[in-house]
Amino acid sequence: MYDELKVPPRILLGPGPTIANPRVLKAMTTPMLGYLDADFVDIMDDTVALLRQVFGTQNSLTFPVSGTGTSGMETALINVIEPGDHVIVGINGYFGGRIAEIAERCGGVVTPVHGDWGDIIEPDQIAEACNKVSPKLVAVVHGETSTGILQPLEKIIEIAHQNDALFLADCVTTLGGQPVSLDARGIDIAYSCTQKCLAGPPGLSPISFSDRAVEVIRNRKTKIQSFYMDVTLLEEYWMGDTRKYHHTLSMTLVYALREALRIVVEEGEETRYERHEHNARALIAGAEAIGLEPAASENHRLPMLTTLRIPNGVDDATVRKRLIQDYNIEIGGGLGIFAGKAWRIGLMGDAANEQYVLLVLNAIEKLLGEVGHSVEPGTAVRAAAAVYQNS
Amino acid sequence: MYDELKVPPRILLGPGPTIANPRVLKAMTTPMLGYLDADFVDIMDDTVALLRQVFGTQNSLTFPVSGTGTSGMETALINVIEPGDHVIVGINGYFGGRIAEIAERCGGVVTPVHGDWGDIIEPDQIAEACNKVSPKLVAVVHGETSTGILQPLEKIIEIAHQNDALFLADCVTTLGGQPVSLDARGIDIAYSCTQKCLAGPPGLSPISFSDRAVEVIRNRKTKIQSFYMDVTLLEEYWMGDTRKYHHTLSMTLVYALREALRIVVEEGEETRYERHEHNARALIAGAEAIGLEPAASENHRLPMLTTLRIPNGVDDATVRKRLIQDYNIEIGGGLGIFAGKAWRIGLMGDAANEQYVLLVLNAIEKLLGEVGHSVEPGTAVRAAAAVYQNS
Repeated sequence: MYDELKVPPRILLGPGPTIANPRVLKAMTTPMLGYLDADFVDIMDDTVALLRQVFGTQNSLTFPVSGTGTSGMETALINVIEPGDHVIVGINGYFGGRIAEIAERCGGVVTPVHGDWGDIIEPDQIAEACNKVSPKLVAVVHGETSTGILQPLEKIIEIAHQNDALFLADCVTTLGGQPVSLDARGIDIAYSCTQKCLAGPPGLSPISFSDRAVEVIRNRKTKIQSFYMDVTLLEEYWMGDTRKYHHTLSMTLVYALREALRIVVEEGEETRYERHEHNARALIAGAEAIGLEPAASENHRLPMLTTLRIPNGVDDATVRKRLIQDYNIEIGGGLGIFAGKAWRIGLMGDAANEQYVLLVLNAIEKLLGEVGHSVEPGTAVRAAAAVYQNS
Repeated sequence: MYDELKVPPRILLGPGPTIANPRVLKAMTTPMLGYLDADFVDIMDDTVALLRQVFGTQNSLTFPVSGTGTSGMETALINVIEPGDHVIVGINGYFGGRIAEIAERCGGVVTPVHGDWGDIIEPDQIAEACNKVSPKLVAVVHGETSTGILQPLEKIIEIAHQNDALFLADCVTTLGGQPVSLDARGIDIAYSCTQKCLAGPPGLSPISFSDRAVEVIRNRKTKIQSFYMDVTLLEEYWMGDTRKYHHTLSMTLVYALREALRIVVEEGEETRYERHEHNARALIAGAEAIGLEPAASENHRLPMLTTLRIPNGVDDATVRKRLIQDYNIEIGGGLGIFAGKAWRIGLMGDAANEQYVLLVLNAIEKLLGEVGHSVEPGTAVRAAAAVYQNS
């Protein structure tokens, strides 16, 4: 009735999941262990140590939440926000909006700071909002996957701290592909995912809280409204001496995350970040050569996720469908106000490489030619090739 | 710095995770697909159809929550309970207590109905509580892993429905190992996990809501306090025509769940339930032959999880440590008031088999002999063997 699982060999160049590294897939065939087995606790400890390294932090409370990136977002907010707390949220894309939505469900009073889609949140806007309300938390998205913006953080962090607020950065898209540097920057709370620049399967959300954030959580007046996401309980399991049972962690996903992080550290973080930047430059050079304009402002483009404006008269869905049918390539459609207006090309983890950049550019060039946007064949790959040869 | 992942070949006979079926491990090496890829949506649909079959339901809102069993528990409660709602919770073990804890964090007013650890909740107790408060929800644990009790449900369901309350059963331990039969019994809300009788990895929590429960959720006056667990949004992704993005589902875990469910259906549900019962009978026969008394009352024992009272003078931790060191066997220690007082032997999924029953009995017999509880060697396996040969 139900056949053996078979899937097409997709080249995943969307907003995530990316292609999982084969070593990560292999790690997931490792047999189960008990959730308190001493051998498994060692694997948990390795994973925490590796996460601290890639997050750039010595934060004690650093571990993966047992859920996807959105569960990390909710865990971050639900532990810190109490009913009536003021929260300033930068919203210049879909995921900033999601932070605001969840903060409100936690009882927070949100002051949104809106920015244009495809542009950054300006520090002055945050400063202005801080003058109006006394925020407990200031939150922005480091890499906004819906628009392709890499948000500069330093000045906003300074403003948040001057106002005695905690600072939260959504690092779902950036961790493992760009420096997040929690301690050097002074980020109090950050969370991410496993299926983007870490090149693992989805299912866990690495998270980290500074000691200052932990102090705020310990001084709450109200009970945390979630048991599953209560970090005071999760801490006892992940780093307590007693390793007190809280839930049955997915050893499979922890095996995968440990292996994914091992690969990041083996490549070297700086090398990996530069690889993401380099391939993004080549992709953009090729795209611009065939008239596809990046939708993100020039100095703030997210290397691992490039948004490109869809030319007038070109049907979004048709092109993406043909990319899948003819090339087995998945790219992302637009989210929110970019729906139908922009494509999102992700070069994340292993997928940030020359072969996929050349392939996707040539495929898009060909498909655009079929709907009246012809250029001399090879225009896109030639422009990208120049970037690769000049490096 | 961090070596390749290596784990010992544990025989997992605790409260879960159980040993994952090799076909499930293999399924997890399947490459990633986009979370809206048409091929992945087919796999999601297969998984939902298989879940409905094993849950014994035609409930539309049936899918796996992206988290472990505890996330399923929280999803069940958080969607139904609004602040001030009365909830009756049967508490005769650790997990009943957890339901009450989470219901309170949702703003519910909990009326606990306590039962002895190792005994069932009596329907009369529930009826009495229903006379005192007007409950929106009556919740009990179907298979209480902390005590080894299989709770009879029929009469309690009748009482709940007579009082216009929804009925919730925690099926974390029973799904795939005993009939849960949602529709035949009239269970309104049930959730489970993937790492017990389904023999998969942990990480997802199958859940199902009756149309009556969905109606209650749709008529809420307050917003659901979690975005991640909001089933009105999850429904749009899992079964809506538009498949609206909510979070990036772990395709790996869905691949695993689909394969695990395929194996259940191939074996045949009734055959599988009988296999769990049969091996439990053999285990108990062997245990009793060497003076280990079940801690659960005789007519209500949970086939997939047997609790055995630790004899006086025997140190719990020492025996369990030796089982791991000498035999690579993990059994569970006691939780809550059973800590140090009872062992929990799980025979779940593939692990419900004769070879493990004979091995664990002989190992425990030998270790008990070393601490002064000698019997004629082979007493336990002889008693178990008789059960197997008489079947």
